[in-house]
Amino acid sequence: MTKIDEIAKMCNVSKTTVSRVLNHHPYVSEEKRNQVLKVIKELDYTPSSLARQLRANKSQTMAISVPAIDHPFFSQLIKGVSSKALEKDYKVLIFQTFYNVATEMEMLDLLKNKEVDGIILGALENEWSSIKPFLKYGPILLCNEYHDSAAVPIIGYDEFDAAYKAVSHLIERGHKKIGFCCDTPSSQAQQLRKEGFIKALLENDLQCEEDWMFDHAFSIQDGFRVFTEMSSLADKPTAMFTGNDQVAAGIIKKAMVAGCRVPDDLAVIGYDNQFICQVTTPTITTIDTPIAELGQQAAAKLIKNLGKNAEMKREVVRLPTKLIVREST
Amino acid sequence: MTKIDEIAKMCNVSKTTVSRVLNHHPYVSEEKRNQVLKVIKELDYTPSSLARQLRANKSQTMAISVPAIDHPFFSQLIKGVSSKALEKDYKVLIFQTFYNVATEMEMLDLLKNKEVDGIILGALENEWSSIKPFLKYGPILLCNEYHDSAAVPIIGYDEFDAAYKAVSHLIERGHKKIGFCCDTPSSQAQQLRKEGFIKALLENDLQCEEDWMFDHAFSIQDGFRVFTEMSSLADKPTAMFTGNDQVAAGIIKKAMVAGCRVPDDLAVIGYDNQFICQVTTPTITTIDTPIAELGQQAAAKLIKNLGKNAEMKREVVRLPTKLIVREST
Repeated sequence: MTKIDEIAKMCNVSKTTVSRVLNHHPYVSEEKRNQVLKVIKELDYTPSSLARQLRANKSQTMAISVPAIDHPFFSQLIKGVSSKALEKDYKVLIFQTFYNVATEMEMLDLLKNKEVDGIILGALENEWSSIKPFLKYGPILLCNEYHDSAAVPIIGYDEFDAAYKAVSHLIERGHKKIGFCCDTPSSQAQQLRKEGFIKALLENDLQCEEDWMFDHAFSIQDGFRVFTEMSSLADKPTAMFTGNDQVAAGIIKKAMVAGCRVPDDLAVIGYDNQFICQVTTPTITTIDTPIAELGQQAAAKLIKNLGKNAEMKREVVRLPTKLIVREST
Repeated sequence: MTKIDEIAKMCNVSKTTVSRVLNHHPYVSEEKRNQVLKVIKELDYTPSSLARQLRANKSQTMAISVPAIDHPFFSQLIKGVSSKALEKDYKVLIFQTFYNVATEMEMLDLLKNKEVDGIILGALENEWSSIKPFLKYGPILLCNEYHDSAAVPIIGYDEFDAAYKAVSHLIERGHKKIGFCCDTPSSQAQQLRKEGFIKALLENDLQCEEDWMFDHAFSIQDGFRVFTEMSSLADKPTAMFTGNDQVAAGIIKKAMVAGCRVPDDLAVIGYDNQFICQVTTPTITTIDTPIAELGQQAAAKLIKNLGKNAEMKREVVRLPTKLIVREST
């Protein structure tokens, strides 16, 4: 039991309260503050040395990486992580990797240097073999990223099932020529989606056409590009699984302006159920993903494992998703 | 001159490179690493103690607060801040205040405890008198927030002029009954906007109707609410200055569904020129605000002042904005 634990127990308050008293935090009741200070005096500890120990042992900080913070999925994921962290009195360092391997390494160095207590990887830029050696410095958790062999908790949602449901819905609507957009093709999460897409096609004796596959599609701008590229094809798809609401919104707008009717000439399905789905014309059929829940669970699991010396075990949590049917299909 | 400065100068490399060598950062060329280690040896310093000093003197971390990270304005602001910080080898701690005074205080405590070197306030929850005492611990800068008497740099854009331009545009289009949406009414930035709105009305002998003023409008959802409230009025505005593209998108969608034609029955003007303006039907006339530039300038100014003992002086930078006319007016 640490000294902080001992004081918390004797005062019947949380460690957070003890920590706040030691850090002169204004939001502790006078009564609790006095009680904690009294016990510290009884035990013959000095508040300033305890505060130093507190800071030396733990940074009370976690880091999370995302490829780009201004994508709604990632900003909502971070919101989920930091609301849980706030509740548990943790600070959150946010790293944008900008899809850069070096930035990810800088973040991992923080764990090595004990500047953070644990890390949530919301992006995975390096090979797992480069990340693995950092596990000895503290817990690392994969969130919304997947890796076959990583011996760490992986919290995501069922990408395979989500894509399978989305594409099955398009097939039910009578479509036989279905395109696919993804972001970074090397991501294992994206590959799972693609497998779900292909499974739905194969079960219905449909082909997966190379010409109808688009990648690096993240934004509204990318949706504009995908529609333009698609329009130039001699044989065009009649439906598009976009993997992203922003991309879906871009495709739909560009299509409607070009006189291509959605959903009659082209059905479009989004991904994530962002609010943007409700303001386009037509509104966007999409997959509801539990983004905030994902962030909260990841933060809760990490916090639970901080301070324990044991490495976290591999454990794959796949939260369920839901098909939301609107006008675009 | 610090030891790090001395080594950097002798090796003709940046302080960042020296810091990376000391922190065993993998992305330094073998040649530079050897050169730095050689000079350290010549000077009879030990790498590990230098690394400790480096960490003890400066956290190489700044903090930024925003009310909510998942609003596109704030996620783009943070992207601007962290791209500049990354370039200058600084880390960024991001705090969501959730409009909470206590969270802002926790962030300010980090400055006091030297866990961060400086702070950018992208939100202002407490009275300035509560924030002022923290200035003695390090630089604080206001970004996208305004305060009359704060003796710190204030980097924003010209809210008064932006609102004046937007409302003048609506008046030029023939509107005489113009509504106004804002977010937190107590924000001085929002008050500047309101003054610009009123100035444009008064110059054209138009009234500012209390019934046409809406507040706490941030999101698409709020846009839905504003349209519903507006529809229930006996005397309705024919144009709305929304102060926010998300709110504009919500109002437009709800209006079109209700058979109220935009812009014929109701003209709507947004704010920020988010991509969403390009995918709604009709597309959204808006004010282009230099968000990324704002974040970058704020981070650059803060970094420039870190390590200097002098308090930063009051200095108000107001970046210009631009009216972008689209279909919604």
